[in-house]
Amino acid sequence: MQFVPSNPAFEARVRDSFARQAAMRLIGAQLVECLPGHCTIELPVRADLTQQHGLVHGGIIGMIGDSAGGYAAFSLMPADASVLTVEYKLNLLAPARGDHMVAVGTVIKPGRTLSVVRADIFARDQGRATLVATMQQTVMTMQGKKDE
Amino acid sequence: MQFVPSNPAFEARVRDSFARQAAMRLIGAQLVECLPGHCTIELPVRADLTQQHGLVHGGIIGMIGDSAGGYAAFSLMPADASVLTVEYKLNLLAPARGDHMVAVGTVIKPGRTLSVVRADIFARDQGRATLVATMQQTVMTMQGKKDE
Amino acid sequence: MQFVPSNPAFEARVRDSFARQAAMRLIGAQLVECLPGHCTIELPVRADLTQQHGLVHGGIIGMIGDSAGGYAAFSLMPADASVLTVEYKLNLLAPARGDHMVAVGTVIKPGRTLSVVRADIFARDQGRATLVATMQQTVMTMQGKKDE
Amino acid sequence: MQFVPSNPAFEARVRDSFARQAAMRLIGAQLVECLPGHCTIELPVRADLTQQHGLVHGGIIGMIGDSAGGYAAFSLMPADASVLTVEYKLNLLAPARGDHMVAVGTVIKPGRTLSVVRADIFARDQGRATLVATMQQTVMTMQGKKDE
Repeated sequence: MQFVPSNPAFEARVRDSFARQAAMRLIGAQLVECLPGHCTIELPVRADLTQQHGLVHGGIIGMIGDSAGGYAAFSLMPADASVLTVEYKLNLLAPARGDHMVAVGTVIKPGRTLSVVRADIFARDQGRATLVATMQQTVMTMQGKKDE
Repeated sequence: MQFVPSNPAFEARVRDSFARQAAMRLIGAQLVECLPGHCTIELPVRADLTQQHGLVHGGIIGMIGDSAGGYAAFSLMPADASVLTVEYKLNLLAPARGDHMVAVGTVIKPGRTLSVVRADIFARDQGRATLVATMQQTVMTMQGKKDE
Repeated sequence: MQFVPSNPAFEARVRDSFARQAAMRLIGAQLVECLPGHCTIELPVRADLTQQHGLVHGGIIGMIGDSAGGYAAFSLMPADASVLTVEYKLNLLAPARGDHMVAVGTVIKPGRTLSVVRADIFARDQGRATLVATMQQTVMTMQGKKDE
Repeated sequence: MQFVPSNPAFEARVRDSFARQAAMRLIGAQLVECLPGHCTIELPVRADLTQQHGLVHGGIIGMIGDSAGGYAAFSLMPADASVLTVEYKLNLLAPARGDHMVAVGTVIKPGRTLSVVRADIFARDQGRATLVATMQQTVMTMQGKKDE
């Protein structure tokens, strides 16, 4: 779906906000792409991101999904607004095994107050991608509350 | 609700499994309590766990909720089984601000194959607790697949 | 939890709104109780409410859960507001078999714009109740938009 | 996505099962299409399906979404299995107003035990369709338990 951003400088704003997410730095997640209503986050897999079976922790999958979805919605928000996650629902579909995890957020329905977003999370292993999780998310526009 | 664990050594098994979750170590989460069908995880808040507004990242909240819920269910599983998260849904209720985050997982309905669990996540600030998120989760018993 | 309603006439307002829900009439659902932040709906089971295995259809369970939760939240809203369901998540826990289904909605976190609600749905069979489903729901207050 | 059904007679089986859902008859829902991993249900809008604002009740939207998703998954199941909804999460996106509601279920990830499905629900008004809701659903294959 093609969206028209209300803030022409949306990409700089998303990148700036992402850079201030200390938790993304902790896990090593990188913002690789930002288009109107879309956002892609890449996570190089490390041993310290795993659960007891050596797969990437479901909560880490949720973290990058939540951020990819939230920034997909944020890219369409006015310049003086900030973004807040209301809720998300994550289905884990396949073992999260690979050299990278990639979360792709896409706005389903932008709204003045609430936006609904989908995020698909893929495991990439030597270039081959498998869908490992999918998320449905609701985010809120905080009007007149600049993200900073 | 009171549950009877099928494995008397459930607590040692939960603690052992938790100790192997590298991702819990990365964020500094600790397993503080484990009872049949219940599990509590505590997370001392650190600057590197935050999002762009200085609050604990929603994904980190999801991580400790997912683990508290999963281990609550795991405490009731047979000795030769392991646990897998099928899906979870998280509502963020209030700003995650405080010195500790505490996730309390409680089994709602244990099942042979699927169990449904709730996890409430509290922010504790100088001893005062606020409910900041609530999670509804489905986990699966992997029969004959020892957690190791 | 004990809530203070902002509209003293909340019960009449909830009952009036419920009476205008034609879909509740179609399935024969009745509003049996309405307290601040709480709402109970009862559904006498009929053959025409079932799915292919003779159990009450999961969507019918969702209908009464959605209404019980929505009205639990509505009971705390100002007199000039109306209620809108943003989203809900329903886990089906046990076969929906019995002479009545009873949905109990309880507000977890009231909010000016968004409220988070839980609804538990029980099957009652000759007086014995079993929890058959549980729902986590987000509803929105539509300010200045009277429910009529 | 293209799926290969394990039961060549899947369509007859889905149609037969749908015909035994009394609740679908009550609301007047019709199964219009059934392909491997896909299922479309159409609901002519009637006054007795509405909520207090005259829109189609969110629970009715959930009913046809749940059925469309469940049958999408059922179409891929072996001949001796039946289908059970584990859980679903529904976001309401726009007012459910129109002459028909159409639910389109699509399997995201089929599985031996659990399948994850998406259902999009559209309102059609004089031929123009609007996405009014989207659902993420988990369903279970009940092996060796024929649907009848």
